[in-house]
Amino acid sequence: MNPSESRSDDHPETTSTRHSLDPHLRRYAARTKGMTASEVRALFAVASRPEVVSLAGGMPNLAALPLESLSEQVAELVASDGLVALQYGSAHGVPELREQICDVMALEGIQAHPDDVVVTVGSQMGLDMVTRLFCDPGDVVLAEGPSYVGALSSFAAYQANVVHVAMDDSGLQPEALREALAAAERQGQRVKFLYTIPNFHNPAGVTLAVRRRSEILEICASHGVLVLEDNPYGLLGFDGQTYPALRTQDPDNVVYLGSFSKTFASGLRVGWVLAPHAVREKLVLAAESATLCPPTFNQMLVSRYLATHDWQGQIKKFRETYRERRDAMLSALEQHMPAGCSWTRPDGGFYVWLTAPEGVDAKAMLPRAVTARVAYASGTGFYADQLGSRQMRLSFCYPTPERIREGVRRLSGVLTDEMELYDTFGPAAQNAMSGPQAPSPDTA
Amino acid sequence: MNPSESRSDDHPETTSTRHSLDPHLRRYAARTKGMTASEVRALFAVASRPEVVSLAGGMPNLAALPLESLSEQVAELVASDGLVALQYGSAHGVPELREQICDVMALEGIQAHPDDVVVTVGSQMGLDMVTRLFCDPGDVVLAEGPSYVGALSSFAAYQANVVHVAMDDSGLQPEALREALAAAERQGQRVKFLYTIPNFHNPAGVTLAVRRRSEILEICASHGVLVLEDNPYGLLGFDGQTYPALRTQDPDNVVYLGSFSKTFASGLRVGWVLAPHAVREKLVLAAESATLCPPTFNQMLVSRYLATHDWQGQIKKFRETYRERRDAMLSALEQHMPAGCSWTRPDGGFYVWLTAPEGVDAKAMLPRAVTARVAYASGTGFYADQLGSRQMRLSFCYPTPERIREGVRRLSGVLTDEMELYDTFGPAAQNAMSGPQAPSPDTA
Repeated sequence: MNPSESRSDDHPETTSTRHSLDPHLRRYAARTKGMTASEVRALFAVASRPEVVSLAGGMPNLAALPLESLSEQVAELVASDGLVALQYGSAHGVPELREQICDVMALEGIQAHPDDVVVTVGSQMGLDMVTRLFCDPGDVVLAEGPSYVGALSSFAAYQANVVHVAMDDSGLQPEALREALAAAERQGQRVKFLYTIPNFHNPAGVTLAVRRRSEILEICASHGVLVLEDNPYGLLGFDGQTYPALRTQDPDNVVYLGSFSKTFASGLRVGWVLAPHAVREKLVLAAESATLCPPTFNQMLVSRYLATHDWQGQIKKFRETYRERRDAMLSALEQHMPAGCSWTRPDGGFYVWLTAPEGVDAKAMLPRAVTARVAYASGTGFYADQLGSRQMRLSFCYPTPERIREGVRRLSGVLTDEMELYDTFGPAAQNAMSGPQAPSPDTA
Repeated sequence: MNPSESRSDDHPETTSTRHSLDPHLRRYAARTKGMTASEVRALFAVASRPEVVSLAGGMPNLAALPLESLSEQVAELVASDGLVALQYGSAHGVPELREQICDVMALEGIQAHPDDVVVTVGSQMGLDMVTRLFCDPGDVVLAEGPSYVGALSSFAAYQANVVHVAMDDSGLQPEALREALAAAERQGQRVKFLYTIPNFHNPAGVTLAVRRRSEILEICASHGVLVLEDNPYGLLGFDGQTYPALRTQDPDNVVYLGSFSKTFASGLRVGWVLAPHAVREKLVLAAESATLCPPTFNQMLVSRYLATHDWQGQIKKFRETYRERRDAMLSALEQHMPAGCSWTRPDGGFYVWLTAPEGVDAKAMLPRAVTARVAYASGTGFYADQLGSRQMRLSFCYPTPERIREGVRRLSGVLTDEMELYDTFGPAAQNAMSGPQAPSPDTA
């Protein structure tokens, strides 16, 4: 029933409650304030239109997966072990998989005990659980600026206060970290952890220089601040290179997040947390209250995959897929982008971070870009504090190299127009034609 | 390293931090206070010892599942649709599955739109998300006494204050609900919702009388209190009977939780929330920050199962499995239980709720029961306020009827000894031999 049709003369109290836009409005918890659709979520819908080249999403490219042999394996799992795979398990995770996860982490120098691994429903759940354990409302979380949008939304769900720390082409700046900690201490704030993506950063595309790693760990330890190391892309270095995980240097003060979403299959939602022993015990309890247990079936499938497939060879295939796409994107950016734009040059992962000249508002420009059949993730989504308005995350993970080149060409055209408009008329011109701030799932 | 071996003369600050039991202790959020292993979790380990008859766990009995045809189906899913099934999806859930979920709910009279269904990682995640949306620390949640242990741990994670409402053989008592609401209002407490399991209650084994349903809905609506209806067992009525869901009578004020864990496969972790439209929108955002999306693979598998199998016939088989076991348990209780014990007589679901005479401490007795090779879930775990000490949840879902009879026989012996001891020596005798309060996962 439309609000205008409501018979507000009958039972005025009931009808006004029933016909307001949300009758539950006064009941929500404080943490829901400002809960809005993430830009990434809205962009799932954009990405699905075939004529639009989406440089927006972070969907891994699964085309190289050996579907035929996976199909046989999953059939065998159900036939031979179905009553276990389809049954509840522990919140801690399947023991055999936790052992194999230690082998995966060993590739980046981590020596861990399977007891200290907790399997989660993707590493997003790991993020959420760690924040649940550590953050009271108002506690400070330090994070690179920009940072992963999903992390920001978990931090917001626990009413943590995100303070961004500046990066450069070598990743997080130790001096900026020192300053952020000193400022927080001056203001009497409780800093709970530094959230960092050291390798092939989402969205910035940069990697933390090895020489900075121990310095950053020392700064955090000396301030009594935990490090939350998020490493979904670490094995996707395009030259096969890996970097020593922060966890290797300070096991007692680093909580590490890993994932099979980018090295095997995101749709299985299998990630993990490696945590110091006491933290791990609490994590299992938190996870139990959140989902009882991660899906047994998915864990056993990943375990069998690791046991029987050349999973490192598969990761190598993924790396080659992404390197080819990174090359396509970087060469197209060189060729087409108007002067005044700059971008990062990732050695791995999924993302290039593009900075447009002053005057460009990437969020306001997005509807015009979609009209020109290209989509990106606008920069403000990756900041908790409204920065990033001139910036865009361009993903090269999913489209073909040809589509990437075409997408960059289209985006260059949109940017060129935008910059000319600004040069001619100033910011007023953009506002006059900005339209909706971002595409919604229904309209984009 | 053992604390006594620490060289506390070197770097006293660092070593004292490193070698305390948990160096992160001062960093945890307030919500972790009192976070302890649930009794259900500890009992997973007990249940796994083959010589112990476990009447403790709530694991569904999956033996009747058609593994061979499921095996073919899952193989076909990967082979033909693997690139979708193994990829990220939306936090809202797979559209086709959400439509099928509406068909499942229609069996209990619910008319719903697929848009208002949010797929979750088991209905535990639904519980957690609804609590996240509504509960600030100190808010009151009303729940039956006893109530589902996993719900109590989610409520605790959001620092909600659980107030139990009395039940009898016809379920939640409307008068007790009125009194609880009046008491909360006198004390100026904010009651956010009534959490209720109307059908085949976990752990109480009773069903809310149909004549009470509209009365309870009216009480909640008149006090501005939402109803959270948890219905995992509704299709497991042993005579094929179903009851009208609370949701059917007040769609705007009921959030409904459903699950495939008991009607198909718990290890897939597929549940759902049906919520009023505005609440549903917020739920999707909350779910996105918690896990990004539920596993696409699992959702598509459930969807294909529903589309191609006689899923209602399968539920009928499950009902017969559980009815046979319920009969075995009830007849063994009649035959063996000492005078003074009473128990509920469930018409569906998984559980009998047993009350022992005064003097029995079910939690203290558990190690002795395990020694006698029978396990149960002690009653205190199902209360937020330490009630339930004389009570036990006996699950008949998993063991064979023979094992159930043997388990009840053993338990009757333990109870008889316990009651004689109390009659002869009083409570002191029990305390002297009580030992550990509950088996831990490592020792039980």
